[in-house]
Amino acid sequence: MSDSRIPVAILGATGAVGQTFIRLLAGHPWFRVAEVAASERSAGKSYRDATRWIEGEMPADVAALLVTNCDTTSVKSPVVFSALDAAAAGEREPAFATDGRVVLSNAKNYRMDDDVPLVIPEVNASHLDILATQRARRGWSGAIVTNANCASTTAVVAMAPLHERFGVRQLFLTTMQAVSGGGYPGVPSLDILGNVVPYIGDEEPKLEREMQKMLGTFTGSAIEYAPFAVSAHANRVPVENGHTMCLTLGFETKPTVEQALAALREWRGAEIVRGLPSAPDVPLRVRDELDRPQPRRDVMDGKGMTTSVGRVRADNILHLRLVAMSHNTIRGAAGGSILNAEVLVKQGVIARSARS
Amino acid sequence: MSDSRIPVAILGATGAVGQTFIRLLAGHPWFRVAEVAASERSAGKSYRDATRWIEGEMPADVAALLVTNCDTTSVKSPVVFSALDAAAAGEREPAFATDGRVVLSNAKNYRMDDDVPLVIPEVNASHLDILATQRARRGWSGAIVTNANCASTTAVVAMAPLHERFGVRQLFLTTMQAVSGGGYPGVPSLDILGNVVPYIGDEEPKLEREMQKMLGTFTGSAIEYAPFAVSAHANRVPVENGHTMCLTLGFETKPTVEQALAALREWRGAEIVRGLPSAPDVPLRVRDELDRPQPRRDVMDGKGMTTSVGRVRADNILHLRLVAMSHNTIRGAAGGSILNAEVLVKQGVIARSARS
Amino acid sequence: MSDSRIPVAILGATGAVGQTFIRLLAGHPWFRVAEVAASERSAGKSYRDATRWIEGEMPADVAALLVTNCDTTSVKSPVVFSALDAAAAGEREPAFATDGRVVLSNAKNYRMDDDVPLVIPEVNASHLDILATQRARRGWSGAIVTNANCASTTAVVAMAPLHERFGVRQLFLTTMQAVSGGGYPGVPSLDILGNVVPYIGDEEPKLEREMQKMLGTFTGSAIEYAPFAVSAHANRVPVENGHTMCLTLGFETKPTVEQALAALREWRGAEIVRGLPSAPDVPLRVRDELDRPQPRRDVMDGKGMTTSVGRVRADNILHLRLVAMSHNTIRGAAGGSILNAEVLVKQGVIARSARS
Amino acid sequence: MSDSRIPVAILGATGAVGQTFIRLLAGHPWFRVAEVAASERSAGKSYRDATRWIEGEMPADVAALLVTNCDTTSVKSPVVFSALDAAAAGEREPAFATDGRVVLSNAKNYRMDDDVPLVIPEVNASHLDILATQRARRGWSGAIVTNANCASTTAVVAMAPLHERFGVRQLFLTTMQAVSGGGYPGVPSLDILGNVVPYIGDEEPKLEREMQKMLGTFTGSAIEYAPFAVSAHANRVPVENGHTMCLTLGFETKPTVEQALAALREWRGAEIVRGLPSAPDVPLRVRDELDRPQPRRDVMDGKGMTTSVGRVRADNILHLRLVAMSHNTIRGAAGGSILNAEVLVKQGVIARSARS
Repeated sequence: MSDSRIPVAILGATGAVGQTFIRLLAGHPWFRVAEVAASERSAGKSYRDATRWIEGEMPADVAALLVTNCDTTSVKSPVVFSALDAAAAGEREPAFATDGRVVLSNAKNYRMDDDVPLVIPEVNASHLDILATQRARRGWSGAIVTNANCASTTAVVAMAPLHERFGVRQLFLTTMQAVSGGGYPGVPSLDILGNVVPYIGDEEPKLEREMQKMLGTFTGSAIEYAPFAVSAHANRVPVENGHTMCLTLGFETKPTVEQALAALREWRGAEIVRGLPSAPDVPLRVRDELDRPQPRRDVMDGKGMTTSVGRVRADNILHLRLVAMSHNTIRGAAGGSILNAEVLVKQGVIARSARS
Repeated sequence: MSDSRIPVAILGATGAVGQTFIRLLAGHPWFRVAEVAASERSAGKSYRDATRWIEGEMPADVAALLVTNCDTTSVKSPVVFSALDAAAAGEREPAFATDGRVVLSNAKNYRMDDDVPLVIPEVNASHLDILATQRARRGWSGAIVTNANCASTTAVVAMAPLHERFGVRQLFLTTMQAVSGGGYPGVPSLDILGNVVPYIGDEEPKLEREMQKMLGTFTGSAIEYAPFAVSAHANRVPVENGHTMCLTLGFETKPTVEQALAALREWRGAEIVRGLPSAPDVPLRVRDELDRPQPRRDVMDGKGMTTSVGRVRADNILHLRLVAMSHNTIRGAAGGSILNAEVLVKQGVIARSARS
Repeated sequence: MSDSRIPVAILGATGAVGQTFIRLLAGHPWFRVAEVAASERSAGKSYRDATRWIEGEMPADVAALLVTNCDTTSVKSPVVFSALDAAAAGEREPAFATDGRVVLSNAKNYRMDDDVPLVIPEVNASHLDILATQRARRGWSGAIVTNANCASTTAVVAMAPLHERFGVRQLFLTTMQAVSGGGYPGVPSLDILGNVVPYIGDEEPKLEREMQKMLGTFTGSAIEYAPFAVSAHANRVPVENGHTMCLTLGFETKPTVEQALAALREWRGAEIVRGLPSAPDVPLRVRDELDRPQPRRDVMDGKGMTTSVGRVRADNILHLRLVAMSHNTIRGAAGGSILNAEVLVKQGVIARSARS
Repeated sequence: MSDSRIPVAILGATGAVGQTFIRLLAGHPWFRVAEVAASERSAGKSYRDATRWIEGEMPADVAALLVTNCDTTSVKSPVVFSALDAAAAGEREPAFATDGRVVLSNAKNYRMDDDVPLVIPEVNASHLDILATQRARRGWSGAIVTNANCASTTAVVAMAPLHERFGVRQLFLTTMQAVSGGGYPGVPSLDILGNVVPYIGDEEPKLEREMQKMLGTFTGSAIEYAPFAVSAHANRVPVENGHTMCLTLGFETKPTVEQALAALREWRGAEIVRGLPSAPDVPLRVRDELDRPQPRRDVMDGKGMTTSVGRVRADNILHLRLVAMSHNTIRGAAGGSILNAEVLVKQGVIARSARS
């Protein structure tokens, strides 16, 4: 049986995010994991032998693949999902883009570059049009498309409907982040069992700079940042999956709680995303219970792709308060990248002919 | 051997806070647990038989006491530590005050009354002078002195040195509160294992109104509230003891980070508290590590009476951010009440002659 | 659209096990939740209003049902899933059986009665033939079929293939049981966060008497118990779902590890169960990893109906050691009852005509 | 002020066990931490800079020490507490013994050697007399004294009083071990939050061979092993400190439960241990509550040096069942080594003159 799906490679395939890519791509209708690339230490082994698999069952077809090196000679696929960390992504991702590959990156290296889209497609699929500039300026036949820090992603989806209608001007944000955000082995159990760690290295700066770009406007030639300020506290809590966060918001136009709830409830996100294989039924779910969202109860809503919000209420100082939560390794990492790639297929940036 | 210590009664002695009173008063140099009072269901049993003891070992002398009813006929002690919940405290605490007893209350009922001091003595021991007004107005020979909600207590101690020098004007507060704050049996394990619950009933209103009173000024006849606004998010996290909270602060006079750190480091609190049996060496400890305070590592500092702060840094929108943490059932409940009583002994409001 | 599925009632519908019945029966091809019955306190309210829903989303059709009283006048359905506790089950379950209903019971009351089948159908579907005796002896037009204690269920499925071939004679069993086994609110978080509680009330006696019946033989007129002794330690651990247990086994005929593994791998359970709506692909999965099964990673195997075993190895004193784990509220409670009912449909004990 | 205490060195001082030594030796009346030795990577740094301190506050005097290499030239102290792992201990510990130092070792390398005592002094202080043989045979002017695996230690203290009176013949043991037993960073949080891992590498073999030596008899020239068989299951659970374990025991002479309880209650351990600085009031505490011991509630009994037992009851197959628990990094590691050293001071093996 011939498989007409687009072959894709996973860079950093043995790590926690790499594994999530492989879990989410199992049975994908458009993409087929054809290659798994990792460090030299793993190259040449079967994926099964090279990997300490963390969750569920390793797909049998991927288990049998040989791990290759992370370079453009070893890796042939036209689409490359990168789970590389910042140290490795800096050189390797552009090399793939230069070589004509479309790179979907989870690393922080290029997110803030002017000509690199930082995309949650329901929110800012239009930013993908900057790729023309990226290719022209850098002489790439391929491209780099990034997705944001996992916690930024949760907050941006929750704010997008409000920003569209009322214009966010200030955000006070306190996160309570899951341990899976620290990778594997990641957070030692002695640090987090029955504990809160009120610090995550380099997390607050990311939270304070990425959101304005994602909620910004593509002007035809550039992405104009949304004009709001962010003040963040990032905390680690003993939760497996799901970043929960408390937002306090000031707007250009103050909404009533009812107007805010209506905006959140009615929002469906960019038209182009609807019906894509990884798109959830609703990108945002408003919960009416007093004590939700909760990570353990709501994190798998929309197969991990739906963001939950709740406790939308007036604020004593600014305008609104709410709680948001979404799955940090699905919506906030691998699932987000895959959804970006699906948009690119629909837009023709990733060639369907690659499937043949 | 005669015991010249002041006999005290614990109201609500079988519950979680009542037990903490008994643990903390074991071996106290000034007070002796002479009576344990609880609901009619328990009255007449030995304390040992009436109580599901939660932590450590039950003191043998208390274990042998017979539980009495919570009324002024059954209870004889001149000093009464009340761990009653709001439903019971409303009628019973004033009855004891009318009958000449000094009541140290953890309930919310009278905290916000004009003539009732709401005291963390390092911060506002001077508010105890309102007792003259209280007695005059109500015709009580006794008194009611209250301590605050446990989470309010953490925040107030952390803010006091800054408020004294720079004048707090806005506070955005997000708490991550321990399960022991919910009493026993309290929070079901199915609700909190590996989870965050972004809601605690009636907690945010308390956080938003109590602090201005505690940081207010006693004018000689009344307590003038401090003029600042509070916006709070309260969360429950899977931590046993210790409420951790992120504060973002605006001031009348903006301090530098160095000025703020100096204020926090130099603060020793009201003179009258120093050297009291339950007073910690320092009421406030500034931690220099990037990732502290943490509840599991810092909660027992000062035998649970020291508040820890860390991550003091500039804010992007207001002036300062920091993290504070203290023990919710010791500093924030029973230990705080006992320290209040010690101040009252030193002031002569609780008669030393009671010891004879 | 007419719904030809068999109407069923859930007794004790608002509790934790009752809720699991409702979650698992959502979209069931043969059964339709037509009635929800609970205590008088809930009767007359909508199910939505009467219930603190614990996990996932409440099915909308059930949410709208009015809660009825738990008696044979109020409840009309021919099939009754009972999530009643022992105090309520004692009188009510026989009343329903007398009235012609087929009762699938999770309570302990009738499990050990001679004429009441205690069934895990893959293991002992044949025991259902005792129903003829039950009806004759008790004059019931209905019936009571029970399933076992959740921890007994895990152990019995793991032992069944070995018992069939080698004859279990001794079992030393130590369990590490999830908090969901204690219902809701159940285990207080202060008791179990970061803790092990080496005692579960009345659990060890159940573990020591139920298994011999389930692994026993139906002789045509009676169930002859399997002749083995059980020594159990039951522990509670901070795990949400999934009872994990260590078994050390002595047999009539000592198997090699390879023979034991072959028996476990080849076992498919009673023919009648295969292909039923709630039957998993395999009732028992042998895991080859050194450190599995683990509750968090394996509990949802087979949608919670597959039992996992691992670490099959020789013993130093008896013959074999292994670790077993399964989902305590699905395989060990509601899911097991539903599978029993499906077998009864296939056997004709539950009339398909009820569907019309 | 001159400090006449015996100078001691900690080998492997920066790791989790090394830190526990330093915490426990702070303020020790006989020993003074004079040197901290670690890997070459740390050597030359201050202890403060070389160490990620895990629990409580780092003692200021040790923080200022420079870390030295782990060799007999760099380290001068006559007493050496070794927290080295097995890879490093193999060569280094004998080098120190050859050089005249008394080595208190936590590594597994020499535990089972004929002439090396494996000591819990309350149980088998007499085994220290084998040191004469050790020195003669190996030509050492120093010595190696080992303490056991942390889980073996818990079980041996619980069994010692029973073995003395009734003669243990079989032990079925299932452990539920704390994460601190895996060191730092040790067990990843993603592996253990809300989970049980039914495997700890190399733990069961240690449990099955060490106890017979510790409960054995020193004949004057050799240690004769106690003649019993052990069958162990080792599990990791999400507990910070304290290994809990279920024991099922067969004896040469079957005791009644009352006789067993009397033996446990009356036991005080070897005379020589009583009154030593690190000796707890009672080495073994029998708990009467139905659901104790529990690690979170009982682990700090006797400052972490008391072993707790409970649930002593008859067995269905063998003779007795019980639950035991003790602190794995205090009683089971650093605290045990220090107590061994204190015995050696009292015996004169460690020279008091070293103090001058």
